[in-house]
Amino acid sequence: MSEVLPPALTRLIEELSKLPGIGPKTAARLAFWLLSKPAIDVERLGHVIEVLPKDIRFCERCGHVTDVSAQPEDSTNIFCGICRDPRRNEQQLAVVEQPLDVIALEKTSSYHGLYHVLGGVLSPIDGIGPEQLRIASLLERLKVEPIAEVILATNPSLEGESTALYISQRLPRADIQLTRIARGLPVGGDLEYADELTLSRAIEGRQRFE
Amino acid sequence: MSEVLPPALTRLIEELSKLPGIGPKTAARLAFWLLSKPAIDVERLGHVIEVLPKDIRFCERCGHVTDVSAQPEDSTNIFCGICRDPRRNEQQLAVVEQPLDVIALEKTSSYHGLYHVLGGVLSPIDGIGPEQLRIASLLERLKVEPIAEVILATNPSLEGESTALYISQRLPRADIQLTRIARGLPVGGDLEYADELTLSRAIEGRQRFE
Repeated sequence: MSEVLPPALTRLIEELSKLPGIGPKTAARLAFWLLSKPAIDVERLGHVIEVLPKDIRFCERCGHVTDVSAQPEDSTNIFCGICRDPRRNEQQLAVVEQPLDVIALEKTSSYHGLYHVLGGVLSPIDGIGPEQLRIASLLERLKVEPIAEVILATNPSLEGESTALYISQRLPRADIQLTRIARGLPVGGDLEYADELTLSRAIEGRQRFE
Repeated sequence: MSEVLPPALTRLIEELSKLPGIGPKTAARLAFWLLSKPAIDVERLGHVIEVLPKDIRFCERCGHVTDVSAQPEDSTNIFCGICRDPRRNEQQLAVVEQPLDVIALEKTSSYHGLYHVLGGVLSPIDGIGPEQLRIASLLERLKVEPIAEVILATNPSLEGESTALYISQRLPRADIQLTRIARGLPVGGDLEYADELTLSRAIEGRQRFE
């Protein structure tokens, strides 16, 4: 058989097939779609993907994403824009699963405190225990930072609830007020997809964790 | 509001949102999925996309895709692997819509002739007339190349049939045998997605175009 598909295209289709939800057929369609676009647009897409690992870091304090280039020159630590913002309320800490949850909460403009990104939820069936999450660093922050209220903002799913429960039983200080975002969110749903009004209500209607 | 999403991530999500079938939410999920992968894998994906426009050309003869690097040094023209293969039957020419159709037919190993890729089908509603397709270059090839049979292998769709009909009425030589791939393909279907056996039957059972 003659060379049918150029190696550069074969490689591209292989790489695209690794993306979640994209099989070989969709990858091939995507590759030819890219071929039909102006070179400059394709090169731009390739470039922003290629520089991603170099440009993006996780905040050493809260675990949210941040730009390497956004760090002040005199700083030896990597902090995100929220942690570096002096206007944020340092007495409130919202504990979320993922950076996308930070973004969803920020869009509501209902919350002005700090965050702690766990990087997931407890899920024994997937082999995810407390050591796989940023729980130790959360408890450490609660010891040293002037935090008065912890808002447990994990998803209202089975795993999210049990992760919230797990954290609630390990607070290092008795004077920390513990709250949970209101169950205005549909149970079993996903925080990231909630509309901004529902999320605002969930923040405003938060209740003492018992 | 503090800087919530690093510019490098915002740009990536913007670029991913331009892909067909990918909205802003899916793009954000995809971006964070990439962030969770090893840097080397992400960089490889970015690289293969970035070099695509430089590495891939369309064959000047048949319109199929080919690698720039696969061209012989002494060649001033860009030809694909099939057109450069002396073992191919130069008397047969299959006319297809897209490079993906060439690949689908090659996989059957039922066809050993040459190809001509139209780059689409006649579709007045989308503003696609004969000038937008590689029809002039097809008729030119029929004048100068020793082609004895033209196999119209456009999709068995309304547009594919009318494109085949359009070409059939414009053959420059009366001694060219005109055939159409057998309607073993499900009508209204898509050549690219047919299984290899069905495609083999469609090639073998081709009928004189009337």
